[in-house]
Amino acid sequence: MNNSDSKTRCRIVIDAMGGDYAPQNAVVGAIQAFNENGKFDLFLVGKKNEIQKVIAANNLSFNENDIINADEVIEMGDQPTAAIKTKPNSSIVVGAKLVKDKKADAFVSAGNTGAMMAASTLIIGRIPGVGRPTIGQAMPNQSGISTLFDVGASVDSKPKHLLEYALMGTIFTKEIYGIENPKVGILSVGEEDSKGNEVTLAAAELIRKTNLNFVGNVEGRDILKGTVNVVVCDGFVGNILIKFGESVLDFLKFKFRDYANKGFINKLKIALVRSSMREILKDFDYQEYGGVPLLGVNGISVIGHGSSTPKAIKNMVLRAYEMYEKNLVQKIENSIKQYSNLN
Amino acid sequence: MNNSDSKTRCRIVIDAMGGDYAPQNAVVGAIQAFNENGKFDLFLVGKKNEIQKVIAANNLSFNENDIINADEVIEMGDQPTAAIKTKPNSSIVVGAKLVKDKKADAFVSAGNTGAMMAASTLIIGRIPGVGRPTIGQAMPNQSGISTLFDVGASVDSKPKHLLEYALMGTIFTKEIYGIENPKVGILSVGEEDSKGNEVTLAAAELIRKTNLNFVGNVEGRDILKGTVNVVVCDGFVGNILIKFGESVLDFLKFKFRDYANKGFINKLKIALVRSSMREILKDFDYQEYGGVPLLGVNGISVIGHGSSTPKAIKNMVLRAYEMYEKNLVQKIENSIKQYSNLN
Repeated sequence: MNNSDSKTRCRIVIDAMGGDYAPQNAVVGAIQAFNENGKFDLFLVGKKNEIQKVIAANNLSFNENDIINADEVIEMGDQPTAAIKTKPNSSIVVGAKLVKDKKADAFVSAGNTGAMMAASTLIIGRIPGVGRPTIGQAMPNQSGISTLFDVGASVDSKPKHLLEYALMGTIFTKEIYGIENPKVGILSVGEEDSKGNEVTLAAAELIRKTNLNFVGNVEGRDILKGTVNVVVCDGFVGNILIKFGESVLDFLKFKFRDYANKGFINKLKIALVRSSMREILKDFDYQEYGGVPLLGVNGISVIGHGSSTPKAIKNMVLRAYEMYEKNLVQKIENSIKQYSNLN
Repeated sequence: MNNSDSKTRCRIVIDAMGGDYAPQNAVVGAIQAFNENGKFDLFLVGKKNEIQKVIAANNLSFNENDIINADEVIEMGDQPTAAIKTKPNSSIVVGAKLVKDKKADAFVSAGNTGAMMAASTLIIGRIPGVGRPTIGQAMPNQSGISTLFDVGASVDSKPKHLLEYALMGTIFTKEIYGIENPKVGILSVGEEDSKGNEVTLAAAELIRKTNLNFVGNVEGRDILKGTVNVVVCDGFVGNILIKFGESVLDFLKFKFRDYANKGFINKLKIALVRSSMREILKDFDYQEYGGVPLLGVNGISVIGHGSSTPKAIKNMVLRAYEMYEKNLVQKIENSIKQYSNLN
């Protein structure tokens, strides 16, 4: 049922200035994706001369006409909504406008997350019927992958918004991870239907009226266990949770170092298993997951970690391509429309 | 400044029927604490003949008069508030009543958490001025211990309640962990004062008006980093977070097993570092932390994990004793009174 034949060729814009190691990592990673995949057009947006320097320094070749100059850069510390107004020639604003104007299908950036969200929501705009766009994050579990929606696009979500996250998260998880009829759960403080806060209790009522594969509440421990495929929560909870999750790895590394420093035998033991540890923990590596999608926007928007490596950028670009191929925006629009009567 | 001389001898009640391995673990652990410490009176509440069997089977000695018979047991699956009404002769209700009637100072149980919370709040009652009692959880961090309030006593907390958690959490963390002037942070989605949801933003305004050592917002990653000593959050967030945290260890164990099963060399490597891993991960061991306190109740209430070992029970009883010695209930009452004008 691949309908790619009927589609125009995918056009992806990468924010060459986005990320702590830009333009180096953004340019190198994006061109790698372009060269490996070959099925989409790539546009690099940013300071043209800097981009060209990176291309030359890395012995890459890239069509000069597909570099779109943008003189300004929204820095990591800039206030997001203010920045997209005061820096109209920034790579993030120029990139988002290309999608808005249908000159591109997808925009990928490892730059200022808030600015990327603001540009996507305010410039590209929301899909009709979507109250709040949502950022999803993939998490490893004992049998594969769970996705968590929302992890930070929105706080104080209303029940209707959690319903939207469930609908959009289901489509993403099905299409991108190939999980048929993904199980959906609402993150709560107990499995019983009576457990939750006001918003989750009302949201569960709404989601129960859909044809989603909804199992009701799940708890914090169910995420890594893999009880469901799609975990739905307010962005306040989701954001705190993923940042806590990331810090667990840092804490373990700290404990290992601390242990190794306690003596020679300890050091030897840790050295022996260093590669094993790396293999065991690689599931937690954000680079593998190809950035996070901002769903509900009327175009494809993929947001990456500021510290994205070329590999992470490459995977983000490939993810954006996949989202285009799978018609995610249209499918989300249809699903939201189907349940527009639920409130 | 130890004022224990002026105090009556501490009287601790243990729910002998509480926990998955009751009465065995509860009775053995409590008597261990009693024998080791010797500075408090201990009462065992539950089915007297079963308690006596455990005492005999473990070659322990215990004054028969300090066993208080309670014929009913609130099971782990019982609906909490209903159970404390329909089972008036249960060990949890009888134990809570002893504290309510000032026949005991502290109640310790590893039984049904919800029932223990309900009995503590409804039978023992709240400290005057406390809107919502709170459960705290200690978490390891890179330099010691952080505490997290609330981790599940209450959802949909209002700003005033977060203020109460900050006040009570500060006293607990100072008195029990000996941290002078503990740093307090509100768990949020960004460090900037402007980041948060409606409740945390309003709560920060309130806490700023106290003399607490308040640093503002902290993020999910700050908990294990140890940026602050007391992390304040709604029980919905805290409960999800600690259950997620517990599951990280299970997930790592799963990954280690999975890795070991992939070949002989792998198995050997894991075997070599098994004891190191155990040492590194022992900070996460709930048994060391002596249960969780329910603060804001007009008496001492310590709640344990259902799977509590004798060692965990022992630490819970010793923690209850410490809370009594440090005058926690009185100190909380004073602090709440001091800020009763903030709303």
